[in-house]
Amino acid sequence: MRILVLNGPNLNLLGTREPKIYGSETYNDLINLITNHCNAKNVAVEVRQSNHEGVLVDWIQQAKGAFDGIVINPAAYTHTSVALLDVLKAVDLPAVEVHISDPDTREEFRKVSFVRAACVATVKGRGLKGYLDAVDVLAEIK
Amino acid sequence: MRILVLNGPNLNLLGTREPKIYGSETYNDLINLITNHCNAKNVAVEVRQSNHEGVLVDWIQQAKGAFDGIVINPAAYTHTSVALLDVLKAVDLPAVEVHISDPDTREEFRKVSFVRAACVATVKGRGLKGYLDAVDVLAEIK
Amino acid sequence: MRILVLNGPNLNLLGTREPKIYGSETYNDLINLITNHCNAKNVAVEVRQSNHEGVLVDWIQQAKGAFDGIVINPAAYTHTSVALLDVLKAVDLPAVEVHISDPDTREEFRKVSFVRAACVATVKGRGLKGYLDAVDVLAEIK
Amino acid sequence: MRILVLNGPNLNLLGTREPKIYGSETYNDLINLITNHCNAKNVAVEVRQSNHEGVLVDWIQQAKGAFDGIVINPAAYTHTSVALLDVLKAVDLPAVEVHISDPDTREEFRKVSFVRAACVATVKGRGLKGYLDAVDVLAEIK
Amino acid sequence: MRILVLNGPNLNLLGTREPKIYGSETYNDLINLITNHCNAKNVAVEVRQSNHEGVLVDWIQQAKGAFDGIVINPAAYTHTSVALLDVLKAVDLPAVEVHISDPDTREEFRKVSFVRAACVATVKGRGLKGYLDAVDVLAEIK
Amino acid sequence: MRILVLNGPNLNLLGTREPKIYGSETYNDLINLITNHCNAKNVAVEVRQSNHEGVLVDWIQQAKGAFDGIVINPAAYTHTSVALLDVLKAVDLPAVEVHISDPDTREEFRKVSFVRAACVATVKGRGLKGYLDAVDVLAEIK
Amino acid sequence: MRILVLNGPNLNLLGTREPKIYGSETYNDLINLITNHCNAKNVAVEVRQSNHEGVLVDWIQQAKGAFDGIVINPAAYTHTSVALLDVLKAVDLPAVEVHISDPDTREEFRKVSFVRAACVATVKGRGLKGYLDAVDVLAEIK
Amino acid sequence: MRILVLNGPNLNLLGTREPKIYGSETYNDLINLITNHCNAKNVAVEVRQSNHEGVLVDWIQQAKGAFDGIVINPAAYTHTSVALLDVLKAVDLPAVEVHISDPDTREEFRKVSFVRAACVATVKGRGLKGYLDAVDVLAEIK
Amino acid sequence: MRILVLNGPNLNLLGTREPKIYGSETYNDLINLITNHCNAKNVAVEVRQSNHEGVLVDWIQQAKGAFDGIVINPAAYTHTSVALLDVLKAVDLPAVEVHISDPDTREEFRKVSFVRAACVATVKGRGLKGYLDAVDVLAEIK
Amino acid sequence: MRILVLNGPNLNLLGTREPKIYGSETYNDLINLITNHCNAKNVAVEVRQSNHEGVLVDWIQQAKGAFDGIVINPAAYTHTSVALLDVLKAVDLPAVEVHISDPDTREEFRKVSFVRAACVATVKGRGLKGYLDAVDVLAEIK
Amino acid sequence: MRILVLNGPNLNLLGTREPKIYGSETYNDLINLITNHCNAKNVAVEVRQSNHEGVLVDWIQQAKGAFDGIVINPAAYTHTSVALLDVLKAVDLPAVEVHISDPDTREEFRKVSFVRAACVATVKGRGLKGYLDAVDVLAEIK
Amino acid sequence: MRILVLNGPNLNLLGTREPKIYGSETYNDLINLITNHCNAKNVAVEVRQSNHEGVLVDWIQQAKGAFDGIVINPAAYTHTSVALLDVLKAVDLPAVEVHISDPDTREEFRKVSFVRAACVATVKGRGLKGYLDAVDVLAEIK
Repeated sequence: MRILVLNGPNLNLLGTREPKIYGSETYNDLINLITNHCNAKNVAVEVRQSNHEGVLVDWIQQAKGAFDGIVINPAAYTHTSVALLDVLKAVDLPAVEVHISDPDTREEFRKVSFVRAACVATVKGRGLKGYLDAVDVLAEIK
Repeated sequence: MRILVLNGPNLNLLGTREPKIYGSETYNDLINLITNHCNAKNVAVEVRQSNHEGVLVDWIQQAKGAFDGIVINPAAYTHTSVALLDVLKAVDLPAVEVHISDPDTREEFRKVSFVRAACVATVKGRGLKGYLDAVDVLAEIK
Repeated sequence: MRILVLNGPNLNLLGTREPKIYGSETYNDLINLITNHCNAKNVAVEVRQSNHEGVLVDWIQQAKGAFDGIVINPAAYTHTSVALLDVLKAVDLPAVEVHISDPDTREEFRKVSFVRAACVATVKGRGLKGYLDAVDVLAEIK
Repeated sequence: MRILVLNGPNLNLLGTREPKIYGSETYNDLINLITNHCNAKNVAVEVRQSNHEGVLVDWIQQAKGAFDGIVINPAAYTHTSVALLDVLKAVDLPAVEVHISDPDTREEFRKVSFVRAACVATVKGRGLKGYLDAVDVLAEIK
Repeated sequence: MRILVLNGPNLNLLGTREPKIYGSETYNDLINLITNHCNAKNVAVEVRQSNHEGVLVDWIQQAKGAFDGIVINPAAYTHTSVALLDVLKAVDLPAVEVHISDPDTREEFRKVSFVRAACVATVKGRGLKGYLDAVDVLAEIK
Repeated sequence: MRILVLNGPNLNLLGTREPKIYGSETYNDLINLITNHCNAKNVAVEVRQSNHEGVLVDWIQQAKGAFDGIVINPAAYTHTSVALLDVLKAVDLPAVEVHISDPDTREEFRKVSFVRAACVATVKGRGLKGYLDAVDVLAEIK
Repeated sequence: MRILVLNGPNLNLLGTREPKIYGSETYNDLINLITNHCNAKNVAVEVRQSNHEGVLVDWIQQAKGAFDGIVINPAAYTHTSVALLDVLKAVDLPAVEVHISDPDTREEFRKVSFVRAACVATVKGRGLKGYLDAVDVLAEIK
Repeated sequence: MRILVLNGPNLNLLGTREPKIYGSETYNDLINLITNHCNAKNVAVEVRQSNHEGVLVDWIQQAKGAFDGIVINPAAYTHTSVALLDVLKAVDLPAVEVHISDPDTREEFRKVSFVRAACVATVKGRGLKGYLDAVDVLAEIK
Repeated sequence: MRILVLNGPNLNLLGTREPKIYGSETYNDLINLITNHCNAKNVAVEVRQSNHEGVLVDWIQQAKGAFDGIVINPAAYTHTSVALLDVLKAVDLPAVEVHISDPDTREEFRKVSFVRAACVATVKGRGLKGYLDAVDVLAEIK
Repeated sequence: MRILVLNGPNLNLLGTREPKIYGSETYNDLINLITNHCNAKNVAVEVRQSNHEGVLVDWIQQAKGAFDGIVINPAAYTHTSVALLDVLKAVDLPAVEVHISDPDTREEFRKVSFVRAACVATVKGRGLKGYLDAVDVLAEIK
Repeated sequence: MRILVLNGPNLNLLGTREPKIYGSETYNDLINLITNHCNAKNVAVEVRQSNHEGVLVDWIQQAKGAFDGIVINPAAYTHTSVALLDVLKAVDLPAVEVHISDPDTREEFRKVSFVRAACVATVKGRGLKGYLDAVDVLAEIK
Repeated sequence: MRILVLNGPNLNLLGTREPKIYGSETYNDLINLITNHCNAKNVAVEVRQSNHEGVLVDWIQQAKGAFDGIVINPAAYTHTSVALLDVLKAVDLPAVEVHISDPDTREEFRKVSFVRAACVATVKGRGLKGYLDAVDVLAEIK
């Protein structure tokens, strides 16, 4: 099984960005955590990050055929991107949405998620471990 | 590990209720599916159903100490029950919300979920298999 | 033909409860009125009342096979219960919604009716006689 | 007893208009269905149709004294006409609102009904038979 | 000076229509009241009523050149007619809006007035005398 | 007859304040215009202005017995003052609301008028002459 | 090919009505412009105008079989008429909506268009030439 | 004087449930506090708790004749129960609403209180002592 | 204990102002009622009234140190004054909000209360006796 | 004449993406269709696609001087991009908006179109042929 | 250059009022801070505070000619005063709005600012230093 | 001190883009204006522009350590970009928002600003000079 893990804007700043909300582990810690977990489950994984909505759309288009499932933390684009919703539906790969903190407990506009309508599950408020839950849900589907 | 699986109103009618939305597998099929999955993972499980909001609240109160996690499909009470939200926060056990179909693609009022704010994950639109995803997420947490 | 007449919370207080809105006839008067009307039409009828949303849901589930139609005055649960809507759709029996007064002329929140979407007709503002209209609509359908 | 049955815009196209929503029976079928039902009940009936809001208002004004009750399917004017609401209240005849399909399951703007506030009952989603239910409710009132 | 007084739907029923709201004076009383007042002021006046939105629009178009001002009680069309707003702006005659009762103290939807944006004054809640106030405002403008 | 004309905040700046909206005539011009008009009609009049909501409330309380009617241009307090609405209802004197420009054609928040519910007429968009219309309406009532 | 061009309320006033918004060309200019354009394209055309919503509905019903497409500028009825939407769907002829000015840049209520849901294209803000664009779109479809 | 004190869902968990919001005193502490206060005032009191909306409705119905006033902390049902509002109006006993914390400072949906419309006073944010305030208000009424 | 009782705009008109809503007792009756009640409880009290929002704010600022609690009926300012909310929080004295009638049963805009967020209790719909309840709640706190 | 045809995110997936909504013709089919149509009309055309909002903005800026009109299907960016609206207004070239399906019949958020305010026409629900209609409208303007 | 610094309600309580939000520096500290800063820049300054909306309006009217710019912290009146907006536009002096804390991070109603529409800049969340920024912006304009 | 000045989409078109709103000075004029002002204040400055939301996010991330403050005119992204809000909070540099015209006086959707919540000040409606005000505010903070 091959999984693509996508991270939206500013997640590369993990560890330095508002640690009270996002924790003190870094983006490299996140990559290691996911990679180790996938290795143990014999799942091939690739972790990417971009601040560009268009790049995220490109990557999801290219995932068709190359990956069997997508874990996506769209970060700020969760609340504003119809393009990500459309591309997830277009490629028709199973997808799981992840949020490190719980957007439902923050500003009103963070309660809206466009991608949620194209995902089989949403994991949130679990810190970095939420990514591992998402991988497990996809592994179950395969 | 011990997991309590709770089902809200009308889920006991599975298989006879609007099969186009909820599928043709029965409530007994659901119980067997969950039980087999949990046995294979060495997880103790108990599956219950009630049409009474108050009974569901009672059961969650009693789960404190007796179970390590809760899988809940609150059905109609998803959209109207603040009491279920409050009790999940009160007992402070990890919980996962499950929906067989995807409430986001139905009537407007089904897009609101009170319990979501007290759950670490939401699984939806996966049919009965969504319960197994939920169990796996809880097993990962334990 | 067999009809189940269900009354929601506080309708057992008829005659003593806000007589300016609900009139001075008692709950027993209502039962007699309906029974006489049904006898004259050769329709079997059973009239029940509960303050518990869950009990009303249970009764509707059990009506499948035992009754040919449902007359329901959900009272306060008209405006808050998705569970009643779901169970009426699940058992798929013809149903008629009744209100003694006209909820559209009272508080704003009484203008919402969840069960209406699962009923073939709504009768309101006709006093106790509205129940008889509802029986007649069901008798026509049978 | 004398009943006036009024049909709003485009109901004269019955049978040719969006048959998936409104069925394949024609407007003449509707007139026959109502007339036969009323003859059998010894109720005098007159069935009219107009695409003009003002004509419908005129007819309801003239019904005072000439008819004992009104069955009205205001079609598109259901959702936009305060004038029909006002005239129904002004003539103070018992009225029943009918819809062939169920407007609550269509576009958002079809959920509003101005005339409902001046009607003792609403019948919907019952196809052409809904008109007969409406006649029966009026016959009961007389 | 020549004034056109226009009355919208159901105002011809004055005296018989909901007397608690609209009073017991008849439509003929209204015509006499206005005519006498205008005669005393040496103002030519013509009073018309229609239940048809289109007829009211036609009359306002034809008023250009034939009258110097318009008093309009659009009744139910107050709250729904953009066509009346547009025609009042198109003919560019001074206009005053009149309501016998006070729409602001009734249903929520009666608080909207499209024509108000094309009128120099609104008189309401003054009973039939409001028409005389409206005539006086126009006479002042001339 | 005795009329009190009240002006709300910033109307003392007439002629210097946004002349494109309010015109170039000064507050003294307004006082003269009203006084001359009232003298000609044999109506006693007093014109006052204040920037203080509380002072306007005080003056309306004191008007009871001293005046027979009130013309009020509440300016900015039109849109925010419940206290002015309450005091107008409390003293129960006939009142007419005046606006020099037309608030309906400006910002959204200027479309709300609290005092309107306590006034028999509203005159707007007529420039300073609107005050004279208002006096005439009151004179008609007396 | 045969095209019916329909104009809603007040469009017969073209040239005299608010020239800043609608231009100084008259309704006769409009008829000539369309006729010449259609003649050049060998398209039969008929141009009509009415202030009556019901008449417009009647005409569209009668267009079935007599015309191959409809160009409609519903003017004020754009924003309030569900009946026009319903009849366009009922006759199932290709239709194009035209507005001389751009309603999106005017009052908030002019942004709603009911007929748009039954039209294949909307042309706006192009002055009288928008009608020619609409004819061309229909000619393309035929 | 006899007072019934009713507690809604999860209040039996006092002391263990989110102590930062609800404090560390237990439900037994609450019972003792109220009992002592009532004894000192020579007021008979009974304190009950239920997680079932229907049970709370039953109890309030039975209070008629048995008690002279009701103190109610509806907890989660504050925000969702029309049935509690209706029953309080039906039995027509003086009632006071109590909240241990201040719902106005929490989530948006906690700002709605249906029962408030049937209570003479609301006490909130006073911790357990709010119950004593409520008893005092009732004692004053008796 | 020293209590300051503050009354907002128009409460000095008690007895003459809309007696159907506010009763026929005068403002002096209110002062006597409160004074007698406080004397009996050995509580020092001062009762003031102003139509000026700013004066009410001044008085609350000066209450710091001079009084131990505040009873406030903000009348019209209940619904519009953020300044009163801010000053109550700033001086941090226990405060109780009182309304003679029940604002929840009147216009929609009277359902908003800014000061409520800074008060430990709200008493309403109890007539003048509501002030005494408020005093008792404060006495309990002291 | 030179026309630039721009396609927003995921339109390169045409034929494989949700064929029930977007049809089975591919993006290359679209390019051929447009090119042939333009050749036949002697119109120079260039067709481009990007998933990046910024790239689409860049291309529209560069179109100034190089093209005489723009056909744009902004896809997902229709509903979220103010930047596209701004750039279309900035370059001031005639533009036509195209949608293959009809966004008005899908999710609520697809009913918003920012670019519409800068386009002379909108074509929708016509499948790929809508692009040809758009070209024809632009050709008419030139 | 002469600058008028105006402070709205409760700002005279600085240092004692909710120090967590507004800091522990007193109102005198604020006056000194501003005065020293202005002296250093050779700017004449006057700092005033009032709890009365009307007084603030009076002062701004009188500032015309006496000052060259206004720094205003309207405090609670930020969110409710149209009068302050109107007077700032009327006197047409450059104005800067200041808030010590950031109203955007507090209650929903604090996000509205009426005066903002009449100010060239808004400074917030900078503590007392925000006043100095405001002075600098005005100095730049002069 | 080092300041980064960022400009969002279409600001490179300054001088040619809607000059009535944005003025006739070009983007180069803007760069010169800012550079001269900063040189005079001994502030290092770099001015950049992009049409790509992602590029703006990248630049702000890279500003950490390289600059001491950010002046940002997000143009169209002001109203739609949560990503810019998040990155400004993540890098935690002082930031000032600038708008050449005043977005509060344009379309409704331009009144929303996401970045405002992460900026210490907003300057608007000052033309190009607003950038200099912004620089001055930052210089004050350093």
